[in-house]
Amino acid sequence: MQWFPQIKKVKWMKRENSIDNDMKNKNNATDSNIEGSAPALEISPKKCIGVEHSDPCTIVIVGATGDLTARKLLPAIFNLYMNDGLPALFQIVGCGRTKMSGRQFKEKMKNALIATNLMDQTKWHSFAAALSYRSVDYGDLTSFINLAEFLKNLDQKHNTQGNKIFYLALPPSLYKPVAQMLGQAGLSEERKNGNGWSRLVIEKPFGRDLKTAVELNQSIQRYFKEHQIFRIDHYLAKETVQNVLMFRFANAIFEPIWNRRYIDHVNILASETLGVEHRAGYYEQAGVIRDMFQNHMMQLLALTAMEAPSQFETGSVRDEKVKVFRSLRPFPVEKLHEHIVLGQYGPGKINAKPVPGFREEPGISPDSLTPTFAKMKVFIDNWRWQGVPFFLTSGKRLAKKITEITIQFKEVPHSMFRQTLGERIDANQLTLGIYPDEKVTLTFQTKNPGARVCLRSATLDFSYHQNYTGPILDAYEKVLIDCMLGDQMLFWRQDSLEHCWYFLTPILNECETCGNKSEILQFYESGSWGP
Amino acid sequence: MQWFPQIKKVKWMKRENSIDNDMKNKNNATDSNIEGSAPALEISPKKCIGVEHSDPCTIVIVGATGDLTARKLLPAIFNLYMNDGLPALFQIVGCGRTKMSGRQFKEKMKNALIATNLMDQTKWHSFAAALSYRSVDYGDLTSFINLAEFLKNLDQKHNTQGNKIFYLALPPSLYKPVAQMLGQAGLSEERKNGNGWSRLVIEKPFGRDLKTAVELNQSIQRYFKEHQIFRIDHYLAKETVQNVLMFRFANAIFEPIWNRRYIDHVNILASETLGVEHRAGYYEQAGVIRDMFQNHMMQLLALTAMEAPSQFETGSVRDEKVKVFRSLRPFPVEKLHEHIVLGQYGPGKINAKPVPGFREEPGISPDSLTPTFAKMKVFIDNWRWQGVPFFLTSGKRLAKKITEITIQFKEVPHSMFRQTLGERIDANQLTLGIYPDEKVTLTFQTKNPGARVCLRSATLDFSYHQNYTGPILDAYEKVLIDCMLGDQMLFWRQDSLEHCWYFLTPILNECETCGNKSEILQFYESGSWGP
Repeated sequence: MQWFPQIKKVKWMKRENSIDNDMKNKNNATDSNIEGSAPALEISPKKCIGVEHSDPCTIVIVGATGDLTARKLLPAIFNLYMNDGLPALFQIVGCGRTKMSGRQFKEKMKNALIATNLMDQTKWHSFAAALSYRSVDYGDLTSFINLAEFLKNLDQKHNTQGNKIFYLALPPSLYKPVAQMLGQAGLSEERKNGNGWSRLVIEKPFGRDLKTAVELNQSIQRYFKEHQIFRIDHYLAKETVQNVLMFRFANAIFEPIWNRRYIDHVNILASETLGVEHRAGYYEQAGVIRDMFQNHMMQLLALTAMEAPSQFETGSVRDEKVKVFRSLRPFPVEKLHEHIVLGQYGPGKINAKPVPGFREEPGISPDSLTPTFAKMKVFIDNWRWQGVPFFLTSGKRLAKKITEITIQFKEVPHSMFRQTLGERIDANQLTLGIYPDEKVTLTFQTKNPGARVCLRSATLDFSYHQNYTGPILDAYEKVLIDCMLGDQMLFWRQDSLEHCWYFLTPILNECETCGNKSEILQFYESGSWGP
Repeated sequence: MQWFPQIKKVKWMKRENSIDNDMKNKNNATDSNIEGSAPALEISPKKCIGVEHSDPCTIVIVGATGDLTARKLLPAIFNLYMNDGLPALFQIVGCGRTKMSGRQFKEKMKNALIATNLMDQTKWHSFAAALSYRSVDYGDLTSFINLAEFLKNLDQKHNTQGNKIFYLALPPSLYKPVAQMLGQAGLSEERKNGNGWSRLVIEKPFGRDLKTAVELNQSIQRYFKEHQIFRIDHYLAKETVQNVLMFRFANAIFEPIWNRRYIDHVNILASETLGVEHRAGYYEQAGVIRDMFQNHMMQLLALTAMEAPSQFETGSVRDEKVKVFRSLRPFPVEKLHEHIVLGQYGPGKINAKPVPGFREEPGISPDSLTPTFAKMKVFIDNWRWQGVPFFLTSGKRLAKKITEITIQFKEVPHSMFRQTLGERIDANQLTLGIYPDEKVTLTFQTKNPGARVCLRSATLDFSYHQNYTGPILDAYEKVLIDCMLGDQMLFWRQDSLEHCWYFLTPILNECETCGNKSEILQFYESGSWGP
């Protein structure tokens, strides 16, 4: 059922190149069936031909008095505003349990911008005019009905066409009740009662295992359809992460060697130098697998391993990703120690400064067995990847902050240089660097200059921002833009999320319930490369 | 018959890794049957494990009073001497028709070194002690018998073990008579009468068509066996040209895409800014096809197109090259204009300086129809390359001096970005640069930084001498070293030579004899990119 509409769409695209609103609807109708009906889903052409602005809309930040809003969200919105990245007609509404006036809220936001060095007085006043605040009680429907009324008035006053984004800058435990309240107050409804579109934005963690994730999805989906739910993965919003797909599928020369025949293994590394910081309560409960693997690491894995989508379009791309997750070989929990290494940082030095161990961090139990490091060997049981191990490594307080995907190719099948140079020739390696340098590096063998017949390893390098001078979008800005445009490509879809939990939950269970938990966990010095 | 010994050799190599003289002989026995018995042929291990010096030997330069000796040959020998590249025991004997004393010869050579800025007084005296001169009459056997006697005495005096290189720094018309004289004087004999090895070095042109090339080979081979004949191709001695093989076969990732499935076409370019210079007489007779195609261009083609040899060893590599030449699709001479463009330079500007046209050059006929530019479309009829055109382009007085091989890959088979970015995505291109920059460049598509989904072309670059600080061998030095070591890998073998002539002779015939010769030839402005 899914193939036909997509084929039709391609033909249609070939016949008519104009992009109009009509097209949006036609495309929506063919989007992956799992997404539900998606009346306002955008496809990419609009962006590429230059129409970057979304429809007018109101961004409702639920949890607007919190840390996330001040540190990340409002600075990102203001930066978009400064760079002409917001629609011409927009409103920002802060909501929270705290009672405060609109003026107090503006003052708070102003301070947040000053604290993040983004304040621009000349722009601030026009921006501040679009800010307002409403206090809500997350357990009280009336306050949400009042909010709905407020938004409707605001809408009429500012012509924002009833389009609304609800950004839940809240602890995960509040996702479910707040989504329900929004739904019951009629705020999730689209194209009804003067509403335009309505979108819900949430951040990880999406549950803490398969069961809780399914429950969370189900309860949110009672009111919001899948196409309305934007589950953020900030890694996905990084430019070089997006570039992985372009690199693979806009170049004819990599795809033919992107498989088990030529690739020996793949390393995906996301190391941090930071410790648990101010998130002790969350992290002690989550650990590295929930914090990093069930989201970022899995997305990097999917981008590296997925088949080519027929189109660079949300539904197709997300369909291919979920195929990877579905193909993950179930983790052999009975041989856990052969496939996973878990670690926890002890005291050590980062950048020559002494840092405490995890157990000494404020808010962490002195006998905590929460892992802060994991290295996992994962196999993908499909035609392309059979037998190729993917090593996923992530940890806190490691020697260096690095995010990169490394494709380790196999050695040459036969070395004609064996007599000359011995048995081994270093195999090629392709690194897609995401942090600190957004770059592509290919190591290869070349003749060593000079009379002798000797090889040396050399690298072909490309720095992603080379020769580029335009603005660079930070991940929050990219997330907000895509959300305003209704482009879900860089967001988690329900099925992918649940497949990943399906894969990881047995590991979590085994690690968390087994008697020899303390044996599995290895301690490592802060500033080292892990156990 | 040829497979068995090679397989045996591989096994033997695996068992015993020591390199000794015994091995040399074993390897020789397995060398390609076309090479004849090759008692002193070296294989590469010796070089790679560091024993760079050849056996003691005498280098006999026939034509030592000429221009080539003064400009290229002696400077190269002296430079090798300065860099410890000559064997501990060596002698240099100049021969020529001119009568002069050893002292006069040394004086002449000294001046040559001064003229090329290579003179080093501290080293000159010990070097000059190894120089001597003998006049010979190229038509008189007695003078060669005297030379043989002289060499024998020199040999005994200086312990050079009877090993001799005869470097014919002569006009091609003298190759045949001089080779015969050397042979008749017993100087081509090896391991007899106190002789060690004996090698003959000649430079292009090797004949002017198939018939004359075969005749030249036959007459030389009456005295010298194929393993004794070193037909120089200076392009082959360039480091980056050698690197083509390493690049292709020491990296597992390029070979899988190095074929008709992924490659659209190949460009091989060798452009010059120079005009005919001091070689009017030769060039007017030769033209660009004899001067550049029947040698350098064909070698670049072979390196690009050849299959992987089983070993990086002279016989195997040259066997694979000849297979390429054998597979050249016969040129459709009846449709010449569809497959070849011939040009001749007119007046114009090079580096903003006016230069005369070819017909105005001294020594060139004012109505000359000699081509100075050719672009040729060549097909290789084998499994790997069926249908892939190789465009070979070379010319004088072009805009820039460039030598490079460009692999133009096909476009992506399907563009998932069609809706976003339109139908076309620039295809990948790999350039192996030989001049002016010895480099490797790979162009690929990457995401354009910023919010929009757009691609841009980027390049992965590698400069061959990056991070290398050791000495750089010039082509003449490399040629001399290999000749002293008896390594023929970078020299033309008889069969390859004749296959290339077999391919090119019909084109030459057609171009030189057809009535509409002047119609075929297109004139181009000096400093342009040709017709």
